[in-house]
Amino acid sequence: MINFAPGPSQLYPTVENHVSQAFRDGIPSIAHRSKTFEAIYKGADEKLRTLLGIPPRFHIFFVGSASEIFERSIQNLVRRHSFHLVNGAFSKRYFEIARLLHKEPTKIEAEEGQGFRQAAVPKEAELTAITHNETSTGVSAPMELFAAVRRQTSALISADAVSSLPYPAFDFTQFDSLFFSVQKAFGMPAGLGVWIVNDRCLEKAAELESEKVCTGSYHSLASLQKHALNFQTPETPNVLGIYLLDKIAGDFLKKGIDVMRKETEYKADILYQALAKHGKIKAFVTEKDFQSQTVIVADCGEETEALSSYLKSHGLQPGSGYGKFKKQQLRFANFPAHRTESFERLAEKIMKY
Amino acid sequence: MINFAPGPSQLYPTVENHVSQAFRDGIPSIAHRSKTFEAIYKGADEKLRTLLGIPPRFHIFFVGSASEIFERSIQNLVRRHSFHLVNGAFSKRYFEIARLLHKEPTKIEAEEGQGFRQAAVPKEAELTAITHNETSTGVSAPMELFAAVRRQTSALISADAVSSLPYPAFDFTQFDSLFFSVQKAFGMPAGLGVWIVNDRCLEKAAELESEKVCTGSYHSLASLQKHALNFQTPETPNVLGIYLLDKIAGDFLKKGIDVMRKETEYKADILYQALAKHGKIKAFVTEKDFQSQTVIVADCGEETEALSSYLKSHGLQPGSGYGKFKKQQLRFANFPAHRTESFERLAEKIMKY
Repeated sequence: MINFAPGPSQLYPTVENHVSQAFRDGIPSIAHRSKTFEAIYKGADEKLRTLLGIPPRFHIFFVGSASEIFERSIQNLVRRHSFHLVNGAFSKRYFEIARLLHKEPTKIEAEEGQGFRQAAVPKEAELTAITHNETSTGVSAPMELFAAVRRQTSALISADAVSSLPYPAFDFTQFDSLFFSVQKAFGMPAGLGVWIVNDRCLEKAAELESEKVCTGSYHSLASLQKHALNFQTPETPNVLGIYLLDKIAGDFLKKGIDVMRKETEYKADILYQALAKHGKIKAFVTEKDFQSQTVIVADCGEETEALSSYLKSHGLQPGSGYGKFKKQQLRFANFPAHRTESFERLAEKIMKY
Repeated sequence: MINFAPGPSQLYPTVENHVSQAFRDGIPSIAHRSKTFEAIYKGADEKLRTLLGIPPRFHIFFVGSASEIFERSIQNLVRRHSFHLVNGAFSKRYFEIARLLHKEPTKIEAEEGQGFRQAAVPKEAELTAITHNETSTGVSAPMELFAAVRRQTSALISADAVSSLPYPAFDFTQFDSLFFSVQKAFGMPAGLGVWIVNDRCLEKAAELESEKVCTGSYHSLASLQKHALNFQTPETPNVLGIYLLDKIAGDFLKKGIDVMRKETEYKADILYQALAKHGKIKAFVTEKDFQSQTVIVADCGEETEALSSYLKSHGLQPGSGYGKFKKQQLRFANFPAHRTESFERLAEKIMKY
């Protein structure tokens, strides 16, 4: 059964071998203050920089989950006002976490299935949160949105790329904070969030600390950065997760990011074409430049359950619709772990249905 | 090489097979909102309850690390005043995290290598933090300490048993919050903290929220509890870690906690006896009722490096001394993964040295 759920999703095919190798090499019981661990962190850091084109002024930190990054980014980068572009469950969650942390977030909302091309950022906003890929609805933010927001405001921009990286070829001048979690397109077991921040973020966190704003404790940006200078983490981290990330980023580099991006677009294209041709099953996101390449949502209406069963009977496990769309949509992750042949088969089966 | 470092430590011997089985069963890519995941959480919850004698009024939550529990417990259980019994690096870290969170913690300190039999708890303390096993110095808190503190104060008590559980047979009437991390005595890969709290903790967190004290966001006690009622977590957690905890707790139950406790005491006894008889190498903790059964620290003075090399040449890898004791002490974890024969061999080699 091929798992098309958008995360935790299909494992990248090399993961299991890497885990076996880790056990042979005693990785799961190494000390997190050892040279061996530092080499693993450094390896993952360097490979991610090469793979994603991360410039030297950005720093890479490992935490527990993307939910944690929602929290830490608000704590460390926002005195009072964050501004959120909300168009689904996860962009809304970022906003709600800011409220739970007693900040004063504001938001603009788009209909589910819709996105933003621009946004009027309030003057008081210290951080604008943009969801590059809204996992609940399959809406992707066009790159022009980042540029449009950047032109308007000198405040920080935080980009949620949880379910799109490594696909997007980001321009790192267009935001200050970027994050993803490994159980999506990296095809790894869950339990690790990756947070990429630039010097402006570190400066803002230092400014907040000097004003006695609480930035957290062991996972404040200052603490993460202090330890990362030695390729260490403040706490005992998910060592095996970081080891696997180093290996998977290495596998992606061997394959080549350009090849991977082309494959992603090809796979997305054949599924969107099938949905465009089908009489009853349609793409939920209708505007082409909002259509996510990595999480493709199909409006199936009354056919949802029957189509899901039909696909499963052919070894293809779709993800269910999110929240209120559970009974009328199916979601299909298009990650590096999903082979071209699997997508061709998926498109063919949907057409036949 | 047998790893006697006190965490990450020697893996429990069944871990690798459980990981293989997890991959065969597709566990690393299951959805964290699925019935399969709920069954895993429920299994781990039930087995931990049986193994450790956890009463129904306590709840079991999974977070990233014990460092996170330092933070979450202060955020959720302390309006202003926490009180800390400090006798080493980790008890001090709990205190420092309270300061970083802008609370007003106070502490009493004992010399390293010393512990507490009682403590005068300040009237304003809302929570007293007791380190059951100070991993840096090998000092264990006698059970009478918990009872002595309980008699004095109706305020909450939080017990750090990071490097002692499952060994101690705790009386759960003597504290309100208890926690450990899995890379110590559970012999698992790092990346999971287990927090066990009673209803009084949930009530205190609700009280703080009603007073507009910030208790965090996705990992507030309210959010953890709301999701745990369905055996779920707020975020995508370390699913493989929780799966392994279920399996390892099951293995411990099969072996029997009484047998494990007796073995632990036997192994500790032969090492402490060897240290008592040795001319140059001595136990750092001299008072018998402070001597940890699970982390045994040897004062080796000028012999430290040579003894370490000698033991390594015999396949026995000691843990280094902590912090300022790095060059004069060695630490030996005595966890379920460390076999009786290994400890006999360790004691024999130390005697021969």
